[in-house]
Amino acid sequence: MEGIKTIGVVGVGIIGASWTALFLYKGFKVKVYDAYPIDEELFKKRIQANLSDLLALDQQTDSSHHLQDIFLNLELYNNLKDAVINVDFIQENAPERLDLKQNLYQEITSYCPEKTLIASSSSGLKVSDFQKDATHPERIFLGHPFNPPHLLPLVEIVGGKLTDPQILKKASEFYQSLGKHPIVLNKEVKGHVANRLQAALWREAFSLVKEGVCSAEDVDIAITSGPGLRWALFGPYINMELANQKGFKEAIHHLGPPMTEWWNDMQNFQHSEETTELLEEQTKELLTHYKDVDLSQKRDKGLVDILKLRQQLELD
Amino acid sequence: MEGIKTIGVVGVGIIGASWTALFLYKGFKVKVYDAYPIDEELFKKRIQANLSDLLALDQQTDSSHHLQDIFLNLELYNNLKDAVINVDFIQENAPERLDLKQNLYQEITSYCPEKTLIASSSSGLKVSDFQKDATHPERIFLGHPFNPPHLLPLVEIVGGKLTDPQILKKASEFYQSLGKHPIVLNKEVKGHVANRLQAALWREAFSLVKEGVCSAEDVDIAITSGPGLRWALFGPYINMELANQKGFKEAIHHLGPPMTEWWNDMQNFQHSEETTELLEEQTKELLTHYKDVDLSQKRDKGLVDILKLRQQLELD
Repeated sequence: MEGIKTIGVVGVGIIGASWTALFLYKGFKVKVYDAYPIDEELFKKRIQANLSDLLALDQQTDSSHHLQDIFLNLELYNNLKDAVINVDFIQENAPERLDLKQNLYQEITSYCPEKTLIASSSSGLKVSDFQKDATHPERIFLGHPFNPPHLLPLVEIVGGKLTDPQILKKASEFYQSLGKHPIVLNKEVKGHVANRLQAALWREAFSLVKEGVCSAEDVDIAITSGPGLRWALFGPYINMELANQKGFKEAIHHLGPPMTEWWNDMQNFQHSEETTELLEEQTKELLTHYKDVDLSQKRDKGLVDILKLRQQLELD
Repeated sequence: MEGIKTIGVVGVGIIGASWTALFLYKGFKVKVYDAYPIDEELFKKRIQANLSDLLALDQQTDSSHHLQDIFLNLELYNNLKDAVINVDFIQENAPERLDLKQNLYQEITSYCPEKTLIASSSSGLKVSDFQKDATHPERIFLGHPFNPPHLLPLVEIVGGKLTDPQILKKASEFYQSLGKHPIVLNKEVKGHVANRLQAALWREAFSLVKEGVCSAEDVDIAITSGPGLRWALFGPYINMELANQKGFKEAIHHLGPPMTEWWNDMQNFQHSEETTELLEEQTKELLTHYKDVDLSQKRDKGLVDILKLRQQLELD
């Protein structure tokens, strides 16, 4: 996108490293900062792995040419000011603590140019709660990716009370230019959209095991041999449309009453040390099927394959 | 599986036709009954389409040989007795009405041999509630597939109060021999497992749109560009394990508190004519992106591709 050439990445855990790889892959100059000393070798290794995924995903044949010199576009800093003082866009990935973000945004905005767009990767906090004391808070917004950000196309965009709506439009265009699929929410809610949907599923997944209906392994099979396969292709609304030959309305008329019964029957699961022990034990049991398998690697390989498949099917 | 050669399929709407295709593909003799006159041409066309999917899914090269004569193994009846009088296994797919199923099971069990296993595809009813007045109710169980049954590997198995646990073991082996991934639940709950998980997601998907947070299209993008892609690879438990480098327990310690806030913030969505209108309108808006696209066909093509991909990744 016009005007954005240099990007500051604040906080380089897994999410920050993933963003960094994507920005580098797309040809940007990237300045990276972390509050803890960055292990350069480990960090570059992680970036390299992410770049390999991106290359595998890229259908264009001439996309590997610039990867050799890609690290020339990367600068690491242990000083926040140096990393953000002259950038056009900032992607912040600091820990999920409100007090920490409040201070961080005050600091970032005291250093960076007035025109810099500032996106927070926060998975659950509201921008309104940490933009208040910043300088020019109108350019601060949520740009929440889904893990791993270099692969998953979703970016949730929403402004805080003080955000300029025009900034959200620019942000959406910018993420789109990176090949992402941004959605712009109408208002702030805790957990945004995707995490709430995911949490709703987790609640019932935890509850069914806690209530002794089935094992964690059964739940995972139920998803990956059932609705999970469909959710990689279509979301809940199109799936409901396809649930009845006459379409959505008829599907709701048929499914609505039993669905309401199931909702009413769902337990109000709550986390406790006891439930965590139980669920962890069951997960360990399930993991015995995957001995000597690098599950993250397998997931990322699978994500690349499914994303390609979606392109072939012209679903995106 | 030894002993099962002839299968009776009771009720041949979409689900019954899909089961029929699978049973035929696997070499069984299939006797089909429906309460309404079966349009033979339409029915065989549907079967043929399902068989094509199965052939596309099949990695073995020599699997097309028997498809030519496959309809020799199919018999259509408009009389229940003729369809079930001499079969080893019955897959029942009648409408989801308890009174109807109660009568149907009384009738079926008065005709079929004592040794016949009888599976119900019921998506929400409890077997306990319709097996009571049947003859030899101990061989009646739930064998709930996921749509489309010829493709999706999940089969949920659970017995009613009067079901013999040994029957569930046999049923599980039988479905496994067809290439399915059965799970055997410890106890009956409304909606079983997969439909409850799906309904939990739908509740929040409907709620977010009703509360004006985002559009139906946004929800569908959030899933198919986010968690939906992961759910085709791993279920909620493995995904939680991968959410933190230290594994499940640490992931819960970090995600548990915000997740609890999101749960507490979720609205208790209830279906009404008003919400159905709103959600349908939004779905229609979303469908304008898919003009002239046969979505069911695209879904089934995509499912075949993802199932193959899971085989390649050695996930099943």
